[in-house]
Amino acid sequence: MKFRPLYDRVLVERTESESKTSGGIIIPDTAKEKPMEGSVIAVGPGTKSEKTGEVVQLQVKAGDRILFGKWSGTEIKIDGKDYIVIKESDIMGIFG
Amino acid sequence: MKFRPLYDRVLVERTESESKTSGGIIIPDTAKEKPMEGSVIAVGPGTKSEKTGEVVQLQVKAGDRILFGKWSGTEIKIDGKDYIVIKESDIMGIFG
Amino acid sequence: MKFRPLYDRVLVERTESESKTSGGIIIPDTAKEKPMEGSVIAVGPGTKSEKTGEVVQLQVKAGDRILFGKWSGTEIKIDGKDYIVIKESDIMGIFG
Amino acid sequence: MKFRPLYDRVLVERTESESKTSGGIIIPDTAKEKPMEGSVIAVGPGTKSEKTGEVVQLQVKAGDRILFGKWSGTEIKIDGKDYIVIKESDIMGIFG
Amino acid sequence: MKFRPLYDRVLVERTESESKTSGGIIIPDTAKEKPMEGSVIAVGPGTKSEKTGEVVQLQVKAGDRILFGKWSGTEIKIDGKDYIVIKESDIMGIFG
Amino acid sequence: MKFRPLYDRVLVERTESESKTSGGIIIPDTAKEKPMEGSVIAVGPGTKSEKTGEVVQLQVKAGDRILFGKWSGTEIKIDGKDYIVIKESDIMGIFG
Amino acid sequence: MKFRPLYDRVLVERTESESKTSGGIIIPDTAKEKPMEGSVIAVGPGTKSEKTGEVVQLQVKAGDRILFGKWSGTEIKIDGKDYIVIKESDIMGIFG
Repeated sequence: MKFRPLYDRVLVERTESESKTSGGIIIPDTAKEKPMEGSVIAVGPGTKSEKTGEVVQLQVKAGDRILFGKWSGTEIKIDGKDYIVIKESDIMGIFG
Repeated sequence: MKFRPLYDRVLVERTESESKTSGGIIIPDTAKEKPMEGSVIAVGPGTKSEKTGEVVQLQVKAGDRILFGKWSGTEIKIDGKDYIVIKESDIMGIFG
Repeated sequence: MKFRPLYDRVLVERTESESKTSGGIIIPDTAKEKPMEGSVIAVGPGTKSEKTGEVVQLQVKAGDRILFGKWSGTEIKIDGKDYIVIKESDIMGIFG
Repeated sequence: MKFRPLYDRVLVERTESESKTSGGIIIPDTAKEKPMEGSVIAVGPGTKSEKTGEVVQLQVKAGDRILFGKWSGTEIKIDGKDYIVIKESDIMGIFG
Repeated sequence: MKFRPLYDRVLVERTESESKTSGGIIIPDTAKEKPMEGSVIAVGPGTKSEKTGEVVQLQVKAGDRILFGKWSGTEIKIDGKDYIVIKESDIMGIFG
Repeated sequence: MKFRPLYDRVLVERTESESKTSGGIIIPDTAKEKPMEGSVIAVGPGTKSEKTGEVVQLQVKAGDRILFGKWSGTEIKIDGKDYIVIKESDIMGIFG
Repeated sequence: MKFRPLYDRVLVERTESESKTSGGIIIPDTAKEKPMEGSVIAVGPGTKSEKTGEVVQLQVKAGDRILFGKWSGTEIKIDGKDYIVIKESDIMGIFG
């Protein structure tokens, strides 16, 4: 992967099927804020602590299967594939 | 349980009966912000202290019976069961 | 009492008579933000200091007779009795 | 006085005459934000420092004659007398 | 002067002539936010540092001729004279 | 380059072709927030730490090929060439 | 110059010609937020660190040729000459 997110941003590949994901989550079409499952491709180095200037690492890492808000982030295309760049704070949790 | 919430998020299983819960709370149907009872299934590792970058643990733990705002959080389905992901700050208190 | 509030929340039992309370406060019916008198039943352990992660205790304690904004907090019923869960910052002062 | 304000709150007795106060302040009836003179009856112990959790004392004390925004605070009655509970940050200054 | 401002507040006597001040500032009548010249009569002890609780002194002092936003602050009358109470952050600079 | 951005600002030269960039990103014309590719020409020295006053360096440096929000920043012309001044927080990531 | 800005304020003399500045910046008349070139005449001593109360110096100094947002700051006249008082955070960068 040749894209490195900055700070607390995470590059995510969305899981294809939306109605029934690999984690067994069924997402009703009518839900207002539908959480989505995806795979973390790359993570930023973290945010800088306001106190020390040190970078504080993210809790997610490449390979994690995550749940995030469907409307979070920005969609981008790299080498013809679709990804989403989201902030870690938009990630609700990790499967497995 | 194969879902780990991030930071200060909590995975909650809502108590079935809404009108008369196991804790004896009767919730009038007309209340605007009806508090709900539920069981904590899994908790995030906590939020990072802005000062030290250390993770500060949550006050609730798996197994706690809690009271939370009815409209808080995001509903998800894992393996066909309904859960809610809420932030700990939306939890009003613990029974028992 | 089997309900433990989280953080800076306080469980309050409202004083019955609203027009003339035991503390001698007469509350006009027309006031927009009518302060109410009540008794503290249980208090949260306090908020976590942003710096150290230590919990900073509340200034009110169980048994205190307090004055608080009438429209503050969330009404709940526990074992058939009415209570209010409010944040300590909505409490204006303590009698006695 | 049997009322102890919390944190940075101050219990104030408003000076009777509004048009010509004892400090010589003449307040035009048309002013939008008319400052008012009053006497401090009781003060809270102060706000907790975000850093140390220590309580930082207020700058006003009981007995001070103060100037504050007319529309600040909440009016209460204790034992039939009118008082105002305001935050210290709504106090503009001290006479004498 | 018998009025002591609190915290970062400053008691200012506005320079009489508005169209041509002693510092040579000409203020067009049409300007939306017309800066005004004035003399500092008294200053508060400063704001408390969030970290240490120590009071941090103001940069202006009694006697300073200052420039401030015309619509800043609250007008008060003390012993029949007009003053303005403004926060130091509304002061743009000092002459001389 | 004779322009030095302040603090966390970054001077960026936008990549010419918008529909198909050198990194292989295809940007659909209909996207609401279209990310853009560009080259970093100059970076500010960083933001000052609130704690120590020390300057905390940026994560991007001159020469980096970056992805940023299309509507971010301010367009300027220096010596007849177009640039954009953006804040580092508007940069989503770095290629390569 | 007999005007000393407070804190992070900067006294700026705007470069006369707006359409073609000395730095070679051409500013289109249609731009919404047109950056302007100017010369720094005087700078404030800096902002106080929230932590230590120490004053943190500005990055610009008298004599710097700067680029800033056209609509930033407050216009003032001193001894018949036009100046602008802006905050350093409204300055995008320094030429040369």
